[in-house]
Amino acid sequence: MSSPSSAAETTTLWAELRHAEPSDVPFIRRMIYQMAEFERLTHIFSATDSSLLSILFPSPPLPPFFSLTPLALYLSFTSPPVRSSQTLSITQFSIPFPVADPDESDFASPLGDGRCIAGFVICFPNYSTFLPKMGLYIEHIFVREPWRRMGLGKFMLSLVAKKAAELGMGRVDWCVLDWNVNAIEFYKGMGAEVFQEWRICRLTGPSLEKYKDD
Amino acid sequence: MSSPSSAAETTTLWAELRHAEPSDVPFIRRMIYQMAEFERLTHIFSATDSSLLSILFPSPPLPPFFSLTPLALYLSFTSPPVRSSQTLSITQFSIPFPVADPDESDFASPLGDGRCIAGFVICFPNYSTFLPKMGLYIEHIFVREPWRRMGLGKFMLSLVAKKAAELGMGRVDWCVLDWNVNAIEFYKGMGAEVFQEWRICRLTGPSLEKYKDD
Repeated sequence: MSSPSSAAETTTLWAELRHAEPSDVPFIRRMIYQMAEFERLTHIFSATDSSLLSILFPSPPLPPFFSLTPLALYLSFTSPPVRSSQTLSITQFSIPFPVADPDESDFASPLGDGRCIAGFVICFPNYSTFLPKMGLYIEHIFVREPWRRMGLGKFMLSLVAKKAAELGMGRVDWCVLDWNVNAIEFYKGMGAEVFQEWRICRLTGPSLEKYKDD
Repeated sequence: MSSPSSAAETTTLWAELRHAEPSDVPFIRRMIYQMAEFERLTHIFSATDSSLLSILFPSPPLPPFFSLTPLALYLSFTSPPVRSSQTLSITQFSIPFPVADPDESDFASPLGDGRCIAGFVICFPNYSTFLPKMGLYIEHIFVREPWRRMGLGKFMLSLVAKKAAELGMGRVDWCVLDWNVNAIEFYKGMGAEVFQEWRICRLTGPSLEKYKDD
């Protein structure tokens, strides 16, 4: 038996992945906090706008993808965005309508162009000495809850992978929690291998500080 | 019941952890291959001296610990090494004597000073946006087999942790295979947390290349 299907009402959405601007920092901070909540890591969250700004936008600026690189996902509904030098890609999506976004006003574009911010990526270079080549490590890739399951995560991850491949890098790495089965299925569908045997080790806080005086 | 113990013959060993030189590259390549054998990863090993040289020693040089940083572990027996600008630390050990090192001639110091190379570290900066601070990621930390269980791994890891703490970094991360119980015990003894829930995801090879033409 198949259940009856109804044609859902849809609308056009333009998504732009662009290099973040300093004015995006408060939005990125809020989204990092939303991630920390989901990953049950709010106890280690201590980022402020000012501390994030200084790490994400060092002076003088460093070359994108060869240093810490924040990308912001902007959505617009009324008209396609104008491509700028900061744009990685703009793509059109057809999505169910309406989308209820309770945080919409908190994530309204600081550029005053009627758009909203729905996600972000933060990545930085890593190195494989086996290949030996540079790679990219994705520290965060995040889509806000109302905007999930529309292809926006795939849009962002594909662009990061494309960029890494174009730059001659040998791999793109990131981490996932083993209980986040939706994310694992999504990543595998994108062609990723999920390593079951490797564990991350970490010295931090007092366990790291005690080595200072060694 | 306790078993009888005998006083083992011991000798003095001076260990120096120093910034690697280009002339250390062939030794580092051989040790990376030894690691790949142990980690059952020789199928992805494709480093040559020339490719390693270009990734480890870019021109112009980049600042140590804020870029890919190779360190080499030199051992001497006859006299303490002379401290240089490349030295991180020199420490004296009392070790069982004699030590059988079948690869000794392959790892004789290229500096012609009678020393031998027994290990290496390769690390590079990473970033925690939760803290938000820079950190160090240890891609490799390795002591050749005959020189293990003498404290040399602890000597190297402590120095990397000390350096990270002194530089104001927030953490030192690395990976371990879950079946490598000796390493896991050693790392925990050094104060490290071993994360059981996180899994590494990776796009590499054809799975990465296919995004180039997206």
